[in-house]
Amino acid sequence: MQSRCSSASVVLGAVLATALLAAPASLPAQGAMPDRYRAIAGHIIESALADSAAYERLGALVDRFGPRLSGSDNLEHAIDWVIAQMQADGLEKAHGEEVLVPVWVRGEESATLLEPRVRKLPLLGLGASIATPAEGITAPVLVVNDYDDLTAHAADAKGKIVLWDVPFTTYGETVQYRTNGAVAAARVGAVASLLRSVTPYSQQTPHTGAMRYEDSVPRIPSAAISVEDTKMLHRMQDRGQRIVVRLQMSAQTLPDRMSRNVMAEITGNERPEEVVVLGGHIDSWDVGQGAMDDGGGVVVAWQAVKLLHDLGLRARRTIRVVGWVNEENGGRGGNAYRAAHQNERHVLAMESDGGVFAPSGFGFTGSAEAMAIVQRVATLLAPIGSDHITRGGGGSDIQPLMRDGVPGMGLSVDGTRYFYYHHTDSDTLDKLDPREMALCVATMAVLAYVVADLPEPLPRETSGPAR
Amino acid sequence: MQSRCSSASVVLGAVLATALLAAPASLPAQGAMPDRYRAIAGHIIESALADSAAYERLGALVDRFGPRLSGSDNLEHAIDWVIAQMQADGLEKAHGEEVLVPVWVRGEESATLLEPRVRKLPLLGLGASIATPAEGITAPVLVVNDYDDLTAHAADAKGKIVLWDVPFTTYGETVQYRTNGAVAAARVGAVASLLRSVTPYSQQTPHTGAMRYEDSVPRIPSAAISVEDTKMLHRMQDRGQRIVVRLQMSAQTLPDRMSRNVMAEITGNERPEEVVVLGGHIDSWDVGQGAMDDGGGVVVAWQAVKLLHDLGLRARRTIRVVGWVNEENGGRGGNAYRAAHQNERHVLAMESDGGVFAPSGFGFTGSAEAMAIVQRVATLLAPIGSDHITRGGGGSDIQPLMRDGVPGMGLSVDGTRYFYYHHTDSDTLDKLDPREMALCVATMAVLAYVVADLPEPLPRETSGPAR
Repeated sequence: MQSRCSSASVVLGAVLATALLAAPASLPAQGAMPDRYRAIAGHIIESALADSAAYERLGALVDRFGPRLSGSDNLEHAIDWVIAQMQADGLEKAHGEEVLVPVWVRGEESATLLEPRVRKLPLLGLGASIATPAEGITAPVLVVNDYDDLTAHAADAKGKIVLWDVPFTTYGETVQYRTNGAVAAARVGAVASLLRSVTPYSQQTPHTGAMRYEDSVPRIPSAAISVEDTKMLHRMQDRGQRIVVRLQMSAQTLPDRMSRNVMAEITGNERPEEVVVLGGHIDSWDVGQGAMDDGGGVVVAWQAVKLLHDLGLRARRTIRVVGWVNEENGGRGGNAYRAAHQNERHVLAMESDGGVFAPSGFGFTGSAEAMAIVQRVATLLAPIGSDHITRGGGGSDIQPLMRDGVPGMGLSVDGTRYFYYHHTDSDTLDKLDPREMALCVATMAVLAYVVADLPEPLPRETSGPAR
Repeated sequence: MQSRCSSASVVLGAVLATALLAAPASLPAQGAMPDRYRAIAGHIIESALADSAAYERLGALVDRFGPRLSGSDNLEHAIDWVIAQMQADGLEKAHGEEVLVPVWVRGEESATLLEPRVRKLPLLGLGASIATPAEGITAPVLVVNDYDDLTAHAADAKGKIVLWDVPFTTYGETVQYRTNGAVAAARVGAVASLLRSVTPYSQQTPHTGAMRYEDSVPRIPSAAISVEDTKMLHRMQDRGQRIVVRLQMSAQTLPDRMSRNVMAEITGNERPEEVVVLGGHIDSWDVGQGAMDDGGGVVVAWQAVKLLHDLGLRARRTIRVVGWVNEENGGRGGNAYRAAHQNERHVLAMESDGGVFAPSGFGFTGSAEAMAIVQRVATLLAPIGSDHITRGGGGSDIQPLMRDGVPGMGLSVDGTRYFYYHHTDSDTLDKLDPREMALCVATMAVLAYVVADLPEPLPRETSGPAR
């Protein structure tokens, strides 16, 4: 890829010479994109689609290091490798910035249905869960539909394992039971909390994810089982059968460990302290490969910046790729990045954390004027269909910047299958497609480059960001 | 269901009185179905679609007994239960017929990738496989695409674990590597054979199934891993990385055990020794619930016969439901049934073993004249869209009958997802749909009843069955 891009760069250098040497174009409030950007965008797209570099790089990352939970050696080795590769790519200021992250270690875990018949239940403990005693917790199961149902059966819950059978609607709506189910169950005296995995589709697939405790409520172990087993246990309960499960978990929370946000850039040639930042999160859950969530997001942003570098495209402002750390179970990377970069002016923050499937454009959060400009920039993406800018969007890792008023946007993709694989052992490279990834690279690269090169920064809200 | 059906029977009794009391209709070589059958078919369909009895009964079966591998206690308990339920249904001659079946017991098993990085590989040993030594087999892996690729790399295979990375095309084409892969690998000196699971879709889902040895070739352990892990190991090999896996299996083949074909009938009122037999196989693999493969097939056939009974529909010939045993790893149930029923004349054998999803009709194997008659009978199913009779079809368990010239047919259904779940832990009740199952019941019941009641038996080929 490197030699091919170098060749591409030479060719493009000749092709674009006239356009690039022209005086910087202004972007009128209305009207067509300057020809200069149209020509550049065309070449970025063409170059991005010329190979499978992003897919291959993601494969090299995730096959080599596997899943990358905060606090793991896997993650630290992956970060070392990314920095070295970014340097080899010729990007500037490739480095890590320290972030203290939580360390949760899953250990061995299992759940066994003992009554009415014996069956091993595929299981994933939820991140931050405590362990069971070594001998496990053996208790009857109470299946509930939701918080109201638990309240209605609160008297039955004491000493039981509560199983939340909450069918998937939207992630936002359903995931609250993963986050808060253990606290609600413990409040009524349950000894453990099990969750129907948060997903619209299952092949006996448990989905992990973060959960939380409250200081005033007893901590009980919490884990996800499959949709299939949840439905079966619910049917058994509906038939009046006694259900008993033995849950064994040895999860530990260890002292925090130093990790890093990883980044590199193409420093701006006129306003280097003004920054367009784009990226995803380099950490993942501790299962599968974290290929979709969110190795793909990091690699697409990285390849977008590498592509601009290979094409010799240096914008007025700095374009920086960041792999934020600890998105999954703490969000400390995003906060640390904001704190460490207060001396810069972020013009735009872009995140890809919804999978790198076929892109349709971006969701945007910021002022109406900024949205209008971004929409005009996005017309450059019409040839590949990723020109749709919708209102509202961002990402967990750029939220701290966005709260300061930085315009934020999240890559919009075909999300059909995202939650099939999300936080599972089947979040693996093969779920992604080389061409779809290349389209994401093109989309991120065009948007980042043009916004970073516009004569004026994107206007912020005068009083906080608009939705 | 029973009380509702009794009521339905009373109502139907009145409605159909005139038609049923009319003289037996002949089925002309060409032309419309007699009104008598049209009225009956309409009532069968209406009654079948009035509730979710088949789905509920399947749930009762598979939730209670779980998977039902030949030789297991689960299976014997399930057979006892089915016989008792068939008697309670009021069906005639509900009983089991002894069949000696093989006993293969999976035991504990695991596969761990040791190099280039450590990962537990989801695994299912293949049925009939031998165990590894207790300490496992730790060996480098050679990934091959197919038999030709193994031949080309035969010199590399000695002492290695061969991994077959054969993408799914059709089941028939791909499954040969599950069946014969271990023999081919052992011939070139491999110490174990691993298989990319036979499926078009995976969420880290291993698929088990039968394999076989040859007496002249060393027996080596054989198991399936996921599509995801197969692809990953193949990518690692393509990058020149050394791959080492430790495989541990404790599978045992024990002495044969007595099991049973399970059956019941509505004895024919004119020609009881002439039989229309319909069914599926009561055994399954030892994972999941065997709900789709083939609990659903047995229950749909069973509910079809129960429905005819509840509606008071006794045909000229005997209509018999059979749950054959040992389809999955021996086929001994189908052979035993043929041997035990040689004194009867089977007019038609029908099997459902492709899942009980939305039915489209049947595949038929038999004489052209019989096919024409069946096609005319199937016009009664046009109101529910399951009236398409295609040439060629049957089922493993009815093959022994079909080899004797008995016309055979297999229920045709929407097979989109069948191989997603086939032989996996996710072959569970929730993969099926109550209404689709009811449509299958209606389809089986109408076809079975009318063929069993025709004045003349379906004509056989004069010289063996046609395809």
